[in-house]
Amino acid sequence: MFKKVLELCKVRGFLNNINNDESVIGPVGALLQQNLKTEWLYNVVINRETNVFLCEGSFGDTYEFARNVCQERSPFGIARVIKDTEDTFDFDRYFFGRPLFLHTTMFVIPSFSTQFFHDWQRQRRTWWRKLSACPDRYSFSDLQTNDYGNQLLQIYAEHESGKVLVESLRFNKGLNPLVTRDHLYLKDGRKKVQAHYITSNISLSNMLLNYICDAYDEPDFLDKQRPLLRFHRKLAPYKISFAISATKSETLEELSLLALYLCRQLRDDHVSCLLLPSTIKTTLESQWPHYDELGVPYTVVLNENTLKNGISLLRSRDTTLKEQVHVTKLRTYVEQLFKNY
Amino acid sequence: MFKKVLELCKVRGFLNNINNDESVIGPVGALLQQNLKTEWLYNVVINRETNVFLCEGSFGDTYEFARNVCQERSPFGIARVIKDTEDTFDFDRYFFGRPLFLHTTMFVIPSFSTQFFHDWQRQRRTWWRKLSACPDRYSFSDLQTNDYGNQLLQIYAEHESGKVLVESLRFNKGLNPLVTRDHLYLKDGRKKVQAHYITSNISLSNMLLNYICDAYDEPDFLDKQRPLLRFHRKLAPYKISFAISATKSETLEELSLLALYLCRQLRDDHVSCLLLPSTIKTTLESQWPHYDELGVPYTVVLNENTLKNGISLLRSRDTTLKEQVHVTKLRTYVEQLFKNY
Repeated sequence: MFKKVLELCKVRGFLNNINNDESVIGPVGALLQQNLKTEWLYNVVINRETNVFLCEGSFGDTYEFARNVCQERSPFGIARVIKDTEDTFDFDRYFFGRPLFLHTTMFVIPSFSTQFFHDWQRQRRTWWRKLSACPDRYSFSDLQTNDYGNQLLQIYAEHESGKVLVESLRFNKGLNPLVTRDHLYLKDGRKKVQAHYITSNISLSNMLLNYICDAYDEPDFLDKQRPLLRFHRKLAPYKISFAISATKSETLEELSLLALYLCRQLRDDHVSCLLLPSTIKTTLESQWPHYDELGVPYTVVLNENTLKNGISLLRSRDTTLKEQVHVTKLRTYVEQLFKNY
Repeated sequence: MFKKVLELCKVRGFLNNINNDESVIGPVGALLQQNLKTEWLYNVVINRETNVFLCEGSFGDTYEFARNVCQERSPFGIARVIKDTEDTFDFDRYFFGRPLFLHTTMFVIPSFSTQFFHDWQRQRRTWWRKLSACPDRYSFSDLQTNDYGNQLLQIYAEHESGKVLVESLRFNKGLNPLVTRDHLYLKDGRKKVQAHYITSNISLSNMLLNYICDAYDEPDFLDKQRPLLRFHRKLAPYKISFAISATKSETLEELSLLALYLCRQLRDDHVSCLLLPSTIKTTLESQWPHYDELGVPYTVVLNENTLKNGISLLRSRDTTLKEQVHVTKLRTYVEQLFKNY
């Protein structure tokens, strides 16, 4: 199965093969990676009870800034993209070049740190599950504690090809190599105590391939296997594609203009759409595999009836069922579809 | 004035000084840069009449993929982040290290390319203006044409400290060094013709400092200058901040919990909020300069009345006026505020 996934990745532009076993990210994979990074930003940097600061420059300077702004009160955190890490992520071996890691450090005073680590674990696992087509896949490793009381907990994804490490969570009670000892002291009521720090580490390319494997499925359909990528709507590189069914070239032209008009509307709402040129010869059925394997959740179908009564069909990737939507309602309907997730 | 801007950048975490004249991006600057990149993605990759593909790996492979997917029909484009470029952006000299460039290449057949270049110029200038606090600042240079018919047009921003290059647009009729000659041929009706290509080049750090200078203003307020950053709502690193006014410590505690509750709600909607610890001693007036200089568009003010009647005040950075909003309506009200832009 894993070989099939890699093959699909190459054909559909998720990955470009460069060596025998190594790939670089292709254009569709780049969009998926962009969406994953955005979801990470939303979960880690914005959507938290804690102020988290993005670090582009020096960690020490960012720490100083965060500590001052937060008036030496914990918790606060620092999120950054780094190139070196102590973790080895299984899927990274399929990629050429050095991987990038999304790394977060949260500073918490000892009286809250155990509770915080516990909440943080659950929050992170929930994040992986929320974006998954098969949430049960994600589970914790056993908690490892060393002699100094530092802890390591890992989140794994269970795939057919085996267990894959997706995130490492660490709980550290000692000094942080990037912060001087004095500055690690934060306020706990009126006294000052040395903060603990909790880290999370994710490899960007490992996460990319993990979510592709996660989404891959081949249900039976009309006695044949239908390979598809069941991406979460927030992750799908393209949210909407267009398919035109016409037998006359004038109709085709008119419907192509309508598709362009609808596509512009959706793109104005920042919905990523794929609009490909159509011909008279291509049947609707021949277009589904392409869109299913790209993981496009919905395809807008325009046919000769659309020109008469204004009704388009919205085909779902997951169910293959088609809903009727009037073209004037499409924009708000699509907005609702992608908002409620 | 420019010196004042740089000073504010250092104090407020937009930039961290490392040498005499060179800086790296600070945590607040990193958020701003993130928002700028998102707006660029929305404008160039998603919000277009044209399919544009994100390139992370090799340009040649991405071109091949795009050409196949688009069935050799132009226009299509490739957007990527690169490290080398022929343009020199004025503000880049204030940054340490190699700048990154947002680079887009659009491939268009000759019969449409002149019109396309013209539309593309206007679209790009509109983008700069839309995100600006002072849209008149942005103008085109004179169009330069060389012996081969290739054209160069630049977009400049006029600041008090002088004119600053913000984007270079090029129109090329020759071969593209990254694409083989054969593959540059695209369909024009039934025949195949060598495509022209149109590029756009933006420096990420130059754009960052440009929009900070663009937003900087110091209007008179109560006989004093009030320095502030009038960021566009989409660009503001923090959209909402919180200020608490209380004289008793129990009230302060209660209002702090309310602020945390409201902050969580907004962050769940992916609104970037800044929630700082409050004390009894800090007056509201002493908090405004901080939020104004961070460019936070709205501050939610909670006071003793809020506990009685549930009404909070929403202070605008630009007008300093305060609107009454019931705390239960805050979420939808803020959503509307940031949606209609």
